[in-house]
Amino acid sequence: MEYASFLRHHIEQIIELNDSEFDIVQTYFHPKKVKKKEYLINKGNKVTSEFLVINGCLKAFTFDESGKEYIVQFAMENWWISDYPAFSKQTEGEMCVQALENCTVLELAHEHKLEMIGRVRSMTEFFGKKSFSGYVALQNRVLSLLKNSPKEKYELLLNQYPELFQRVSKTMIAHYLGVSRETLSRLQNK
Amino acid sequence: MEYASFLRHHIEQIIELNDSEFDIVQTYFHPKKVKKKEYLINKGNKVTSEFLVINGCLKAFTFDESGKEYIVQFAMENWWISDYPAFSKQTEGEMCVQALENCTVLELAHEHKLEMIGRVRSMTEFFGKKSFSGYVALQNRVLSLLKNSPKEKYELLLNQYPELFQRVSKTMIAHYLGVSRETLSRLQNK
Repeated sequence: MEYASFLRHHIEQIIELNDSEFDIVQTYFHPKKVKKKEYLINKGNKVTSEFLVINGCLKAFTFDESGKEYIVQFAMENWWISDYPAFSKQTEGEMCVQALENCTVLELAHEHKLEMIGRVRSMTEFFGKKSFSGYVALQNRVLSLLKNSPKEKYELLLNQYPELFQRVSKTMIAHYLGVSRETLSRLQNK
Repeated sequence: MEYASFLRHHIEQIIELNDSEFDIVQTYFHPKKVKKKEYLINKGNKVTSEFLVINGCLKAFTFDESGKEYIVQFAMENWWISDYPAFSKQTEGEMCVQALENCTVLELAHEHKLEMIGRVRSMTEFFGKKSFSGYVALQNRVLSLLKNSPKEKYELLLNQYPELFQRVSKTMIAHYLGVSRETLSRLQNK
């Protein structure tokens, strides 16, 4: 597979795999290119895959009847993205996943993930550790959404992911932080 | 251990263990009783354990300079609770974990967890699946915090965990949902 060395490096940041294990693992990942503004997942579609970002930037979001957007997650290189509530149950989702740049991702289907884990048991540890870090990051996000002022939320995100501010619009940052575009502009002009 | 059958049932909802595996696993869990209002974790203390609730109800929360409280998590029977951001790095935490009723919990220390997983590999799958469900639940919570009106937030929580409303105060529900006590009262009186 074209992106084998990327994938191997990504996995080996968490666990070690020998060559024969990695040869099995890589067969389950399928490269996919999506152009800027294209959708990997559409609201209402059955969600059967998750995606590892090789390059590019994406968002997982939903919107209400008035069209107002709410961003649950961004993803850049080495991040995973999906509509996880829908993916976990293999059902139709509430979210969209859209490319914010031209992207290359590796697609992993739910059934392939289970088969792969059955064949290479140490991948259980890989996904377990990824899920645990994701859980911890989301506890921090919940805490910030509940507690922090718009200014604190903005500064926390800027410190954590400075690169994100170069790659996505200010409007999207506002939709991620749950603050209005006007509040965000005021903060930036300070 | 006194609570062995509870623990075994809890684990076997996710994975199967044979008797000798369970005998190893149970040695790492230590029962602890906490009285109503007592703290399992104090803000600023190093967090080295997580807790499985046998009976009772607890909250994980923090507060700001003015004393305003923000509840990240509740936990009832069969739920796990800790200050996970601090637990994951074995550092001092921002949160407290306090008993809301007289509780019995099983304490699992971080170092014991690692040792146990090294000896009983299938526990990797148990914790991995727990973390993944936790991650999914928190994505739903983030979505709700961003998108839903106070009324929708309230109804979602009531549908998901009706029992919680019998066991914790309305003020705490408000601190969990990120809405004011007054807004919550208005919703309940409707």
